[in-house]
Amino acid sequence: MRAVDIPARTYRHDMSAAAYFDNGSTTAVANEVIEEMLPFFTAVYGNPASIHSMGDAAAKAISVARKRTASAMGCRPSEIIFTSGGTESDNLAVMGAVIRSGKKKVITSAVEHSAVLEACGRLREMGYDITVIPVDGEGYVDTDGISNAADGDTALVSVMAANNVIGTIQPIAELAKIAHENGALFHTDAVQAFTKTDIDVKRDGIDMMSVSGHKIHGPKGTGALYVRSGVELTPMILGGGQEHGLRSSTENVPGIAGIGKAAELVMLTMDDDVKRMAKMRDKIINEILSIKGSYLNGPVRNRLCSNAHFGFSGVKGNDIVLALSKMGVYASAASACSAGSTEPSHVMTAIGRSAQEALSSLRISLSRYTTEDEVNILLDALPKALRSVRK
Amino acid sequence: MRAVDIPARTYRHDMSAAAYFDNGSTTAVANEVIEEMLPFFTAVYGNPASIHSMGDAAAKAISVARKRTASAMGCRPSEIIFTSGGTESDNLAVMGAVIRSGKKKVITSAVEHSAVLEACGRLREMGYDITVIPVDGEGYVDTDGISNAADGDTALVSVMAANNVIGTIQPIAELAKIAHENGALFHTDAVQAFTKTDIDVKRDGIDMMSVSGHKIHGPKGTGALYVRSGVELTPMILGGGQEHGLRSSTENVPGIAGIGKAAELVMLTMDDDVKRMAKMRDKIINEILSIKGSYLNGPVRNRLCSNAHFGFSGVKGNDIVLALSKMGVYASAASACSAGSTEPSHVMTAIGRSAQEALSSLRISLSRYTTEDEVNILLDALPKALRSVRK
Repeated sequence: MRAVDIPARTYRHDMSAAAYFDNGSTTAVANEVIEEMLPFFTAVYGNPASIHSMGDAAAKAISVARKRTASAMGCRPSEIIFTSGGTESDNLAVMGAVIRSGKKKVITSAVEHSAVLEACGRLREMGYDITVIPVDGEGYVDTDGISNAADGDTALVSVMAANNVIGTIQPIAELAKIAHENGALFHTDAVQAFTKTDIDVKRDGIDMMSVSGHKIHGPKGTGALYVRSGVELTPMILGGGQEHGLRSSTENVPGIAGIGKAAELVMLTMDDDVKRMAKMRDKIINEILSIKGSYLNGPVRNRLCSNAHFGFSGVKGNDIVLALSKMGVYASAASACSAGSTEPSHVMTAIGRSAQEALSSLRISLSRYTTEDEVNILLDALPKALRSVRK
Repeated sequence: MRAVDIPARTYRHDMSAAAYFDNGSTTAVANEVIEEMLPFFTAVYGNPASIHSMGDAAAKAISVARKRTASAMGCRPSEIIFTSGGTESDNLAVMGAVIRSGKKKVITSAVEHSAVLEACGRLREMGYDITVIPVDGEGYVDTDGISNAADGDTALVSVMAANNVIGTIQPIAELAKIAHENGALFHTDAVQAFTKTDIDVKRDGIDMMSVSGHKIHGPKGTGALYVRSGVELTPMILGGGQEHGLRSSTENVPGIAGIGKAAELVMLTMDDDVKRMAKMRDKIINEILSIKGSYLNGPVRNRLCSNAHFGFSGVKGNDIVLALSKMGVYASAASACSAGSTEPSHVMTAIGRSAQEALSSLRISLSRYTTEDEVNILLDALPKALRSVRK
């Protein structure tokens, strides 16, 4: 036994950013979330499968987190599978449902996250027929294309709820309907959309929905997958049979407590937060479009409240990001989800941008914690960054 | 931007256990590990793939953790893949290596963790030939059996370094040699053995080794897999290409920092800790074997320093665990790795115990933080627990 005594200096930090606009890549963990997690590292650290009191307390914490997450996603607690992140959720949904289905076709879009596209690629290697539906210039998926491609041998339609690069919000209720008319399941990657758009899995007819903890002020290494009761999946991670046999491994109790708390916390004020973010986003878009050589990528309407994405003629996005970083302003050139990639984003190519245009990108992504001050710092810093880059 | 201010009450806890003897199921996170992790939740929370300063700082933290983990495992940093836990590490090693190999046979033992056995089960469904080698009454794998079963079409031999239920330490260097003589790879699940037995992946000829964070006072939801340079794996989790393309997903930066720190910390005093644990384990074994109707499961020699495992004639292990729990003493009936299982452990069956004997089990598992006081509390509580159960 030992007492836990952590010196204050280790956790009392201000952010080192003057302005953080890379929330599409990852977010700061909310104070309330850290408070929720800490006891499960040192005080209630039991294995939830242990039958003694401390194991029982850990199992109860997971149960609470499952209720909170389910409530935020609009489903029953028994329909939530906790995973290690959005990528694993996407992989489990796509591969798990298709392999289990006995059918041979999958339909997805050209602007999906690599976690969906790579899972489809693996299925193609296994002999499945994968149809990738194009999008228009604003990133909207061709719904007629999906309708025409779908048939009785289609296992799954997977289209993301909101795009991680350019913020396009897809008509997922309509897409779910098309899937169901053909007897297929509908999955949506809602990693960016969750807590930022109005999604209700029951109302919208969603069969599976992936979310990530670290995009909603929860911890990295956590995710959840909503799996509608009655949908059967082939598990991917095999062992002790945790998470209804769909995700074996000793449960990440602090992480699960964290994602549950984050989901609850962020939903509490979602409507106000979304309005505030959208207002700041519009201010950013209006101001930046007045800069010579700039243009907007992605839609004007039905755009994620937290996303603004620009091109700057003749400038490399990475150079702008580095110039902003020197001023303590953190943004990204595309998404951060493709590790260290210097290739043009497949999303930019899909909306018809050239490789050169794609590499001229700057993504500004907001969160509920973004302030007007930060917006002003950004709008002051960006012209300076562009000048220094163009020199 | 916001300042982080966490009230002290949330993390200053004493353990609620009077004596914690369930370290084989999971361990308390070390203070030093929590200190290491905390800044990456709220201060340096960037995505390691982001090229701005905060992303860069996160990437550097992973690099430090990779060096620390590699140093503890006796390999190069580039040979470490961070995962979500021991189960995922086992799955990736077994399925990833076998699917990639082009060969058709796998050899494993009857006492492996379910993460290895279930992965082998999946491979069997896919058409691979799985040979499960029996063990003797102390849990030692039949090395001649492995030698006889192995041939040029054997992709992999996978045998755990130390058993999670009964503590048997296997002769892994000898088993690796047999695998290599047949052109097969050798994988070991070292989740229990790592930092508690003398393993050196290079000296011992290990091609892949799985470890878990939460068994060595690191955080749950973290693991690592050593993959010898030159060994090729088919990845299981697909997406952005993180971890050399072998484990896609935004990296769990605090978790990775945590497992790296835990590996470094625990290795610093490993030799002394192992001796002290072994001495307490022997005291526990000697005292408990003097209780009428008790017997030892697992070996006397070459036993994990942290493991003591007993049977008690005519008593249910779960009942003893619950009786001990009421006194604040936490132990387990078997392993906690099979969620909520009331089936006899396959390990007990493999060493020749009857189902009834298997269900009469009590596992006492120690850690580097176990004290003499705790041992005395256990030895005082156990006879009382047995009396109350036998009533």
